[in-house]
Amino acid sequence: MKTRKFLLSENEIPEHWYNIMADMPNKPMPPLDPGTREPIGPEALAPLFPMGLIMQEVSPEKWIEIPDEVRNIYTMWRPTPLYRAYGLEKALDTPAKIYYKYEGASPSGSHKPNTAVPQAYYNAQEGVKKIVTETGAGQWGSALSFACNHFGIECEVFMVGVSYDGKPYRKVMMNTWGAEVHSSPSTLTAAGRKILADDPNSPGSLGIAISEAVEVAASDPNTKYALGSVLNHVLLHQTIIGQEAVKQMEKAGDMPDIVIAPFGGGSNFAGLSFPFLRMNFEEGKNIRCIAVEPTSCPKLTRGVFRYDFGDTIGMTPLFPMYTLGHTFVPAPIHAGGLRYHGAGVLVSQLLKDDLIEATSHTNPEAFEAGITFARTEGIIPAPEATYGIATAIAEANKCKEEGVSKTILFNLCGHGNFDMKAYEDYFAGKIVEHELTDEEIQASLALLNTPEID
Amino acid sequence: MKTRKFLLSENEIPEHWYNIMADMPNKPMPPLDPGTREPIGPEALAPLFPMGLIMQEVSPEKWIEIPDEVRNIYTMWRPTPLYRAYGLEKALDTPAKIYYKYEGASPSGSHKPNTAVPQAYYNAQEGVKKIVTETGAGQWGSALSFACNHFGIECEVFMVGVSYDGKPYRKVMMNTWGAEVHSSPSTLTAAGRKILADDPNSPGSLGIAISEAVEVAASDPNTKYALGSVLNHVLLHQTIIGQEAVKQMEKAGDMPDIVIAPFGGGSNFAGLSFPFLRMNFEEGKNIRCIAVEPTSCPKLTRGVFRYDFGDTIGMTPLFPMYTLGHTFVPAPIHAGGLRYHGAGVLVSQLLKDDLIEATSHTNPEAFEAGITFARTEGIIPAPEATYGIATAIAEANKCKEEGVSKTILFNLCGHGNFDMKAYEDYFAGKIVEHELTDEEIQASLALLNTPEID
Repeated sequence: MKTRKFLLSENEIPEHWYNIMADMPNKPMPPLDPGTREPIGPEALAPLFPMGLIMQEVSPEKWIEIPDEVRNIYTMWRPTPLYRAYGLEKALDTPAKIYYKYEGASPSGSHKPNTAVPQAYYNAQEGVKKIVTETGAGQWGSALSFACNHFGIECEVFMVGVSYDGKPYRKVMMNTWGAEVHSSPSTLTAAGRKILADDPNSPGSLGIAISEAVEVAASDPNTKYALGSVLNHVLLHQTIIGQEAVKQMEKAGDMPDIVIAPFGGGSNFAGLSFPFLRMNFEEGKNIRCIAVEPTSCPKLTRGVFRYDFGDTIGMTPLFPMYTLGHTFVPAPIHAGGLRYHGAGVLVSQLLKDDLIEATSHTNPEAFEAGITFARTEGIIPAPEATYGIATAIAEANKCKEEGVSKTILFNLCGHGNFDMKAYEDYFAGKIVEHELTDEEIQASLALLNTPEID
Repeated sequence: MKTRKFLLSENEIPEHWYNIMADMPNKPMPPLDPGTREPIGPEALAPLFPMGLIMQEVSPEKWIEIPDEVRNIYTMWRPTPLYRAYGLEKALDTPAKIYYKYEGASPSGSHKPNTAVPQAYYNAQEGVKKIVTETGAGQWGSALSFACNHFGIECEVFMVGVSYDGKPYRKVMMNTWGAEVHSSPSTLTAAGRKILADDPNSPGSLGIAISEAVEVAASDPNTKYALGSVLNHVLLHQTIIGQEAVKQMEKAGDMPDIVIAPFGGGSNFAGLSFPFLRMNFEEGKNIRCIAVEPTSCPKLTRGVFRYDFGDTIGMTPLFPMYTLGHTFVPAPIHAGGLRYHGAGVLVSQLLKDDLIEATSHTNPEAFEAGITFARTEGIIPAPEATYGIATAIAEANKCKEEGVSKTILFNLCGHGNFDMKAYEDYFAGKIVEHELTDEEIQASLALLNTPEID
């Protein structure tokens, strides 16, 4: 029998996270104070994050040690398997070799616990009693609920309204791990009330939910905030995915030509790709790393590179990022985790420097890829994951057209067990593309009064 | 770090299924023709099953080879991990060592694909175009949909009405793998129409859904029927679980004193326990194997051992089994997979001969155990699985009271990702016990006119 799954033992779980900052030829520009617009230091983040995480956010060190307690919790689902996609390859009749790293094996069903656990750990170390966060489709909120429960920390989650209504079982999952969940925008915060005053039917967005969570966290000294993507320390934690994948590809006697992952704020993509980019930096390899976003939320492929807020209201520091403007509200696609207006600074700088690539797919293209995957590989993918699958299929088809065999690796970041409503909509013909015009993007960008970047 | 998961490589997937029939001191009595009440031979099953499966149903061979193609599909999720439940042990403060075999890692989320795949395989070998089946909570229907899709066989599923309504996403999952799903009782069959005539609001039961599926299969020569539990060949296929678990316990340097699994028709329990019972038979070990059923469907603990039908209408052969009577309709608990009136003949004979044990838990006891498990081990268990957890906790607590350390192994047969409505009901205080009186059981048994057994 041909080996299908390449596994590692628990003692092969990496002992360090990889900090790509150390290897980047151009370091990201500093964040700016939202009021003074002057560069800020780490201390400015102290009201929201514990120092353990802030130090990681700004660390120049290439390798950051993973605490034993975190590695111990990682063993609840890690190392995750790396699969050779024999079924998909056969269906596509492609000369390409396709592999995927499966992060859906975690308790909450995605890659998000990889950072939720260390975030809860560092908060617990510093005596934090409660963590507030936002969640889109629910993957991040579930992961943080799971992690907080483990450390006996209270967890409060603002869930993007359109997902709160469409995915009620994600809420119950968070409740099962002891978290409290609100639909966002809510009347519990000034930010939420402002949004509702402007649009009582607002479907919500990650940016809005972030505003609400940050507001709650900032108002209580025993409460901190946590973010599931975008920030450097979050991307850092996710590098455990790619580090395992490097080892597993070696076990498979192979190495990818192309590494692919869906893109929301950057943690999914960074998690898989940064350890392969390290090989580009260190060993002069030329592995293509492709971030995949929805055409309905195209900050990497149609946005601008400038300073912008991380949230919708404008409470966070200003970050140098690819953005559609912080007031941009993406169409309510099922891939809620990809509905974010901006990109993390590390990924933005890498794209600016042409060290990575970006592409996009429509909603129907992504679902079609997801169905093909479910029927050939068995696992029903999360809507976010289907975007990465769509690019993997496109690259495999290109190999067939060109008659070349390439090795493709993508991040199957989560299962779709909580997203069956999305599949129901697909079979009912309700998955359509929300065509985004240049005028809509320009209108959103025109509202920005944040510093431009040369 | 202490090892949490004991893993096997793909080439350690067993090459044979274990047929306990060969080792049983008393072989089960033969099935009887429902009309003549004379013993029937394998040929009587030919209208419903392919010969490859019928030969397994009656085989006296101790080891039955697993076809390479089946083992190859098994690698999509097997070998499954065996976990040491450090979190649960700590929460219980027990001297017991608790392990669980996790079958929720399969694409459909339970142990059911272990038999769905070989069943689809043997049907495909014999040119069958379509398979019809029933499903309770949806685990079996999902598994067969997945398996049929793999072999290009059409799949039609009668889903117990109360689960069809309460678990719509199971239906979508089956659709995603290409299956057609009906709510049972339906108007598509004479059996369904009869039930609906008597009770238009019937919540359905596995027995009723079996009647419908058998009726459809029997009416078309290119269509066969498949059962997800009860029958010998189904239990046989599931022994892959326990065989892996034996190897994994050896890797852990341990061996269970007590093996525990939930009990619906027998495949969950047999799958884990039979390979350990083999060690009792062959090596004179004394491993206790405990089948756990709901107090609301207590055929093993309060039923009678006699001939009965496998379905509600009385279309199947008569089997020697522990039963509550084939017209018994259990309370509509969320653990739909355990709502079956009878027990498979192998398990029934083993219980009759005192070679295994049986116990039961109420619905609230089971959910409470499930919540404890989710909060200590991370994985949210399927409602069926919570019954096994409840017994594992009870035995671990007994160890604490008695100050002895025993090794406990249970089957975590599936995750609860499709059962969050059940958890929602639990948190809303809606999970109550449906007290079953002796009079109710006697009333159901009084309707039996099937042969008694001395």
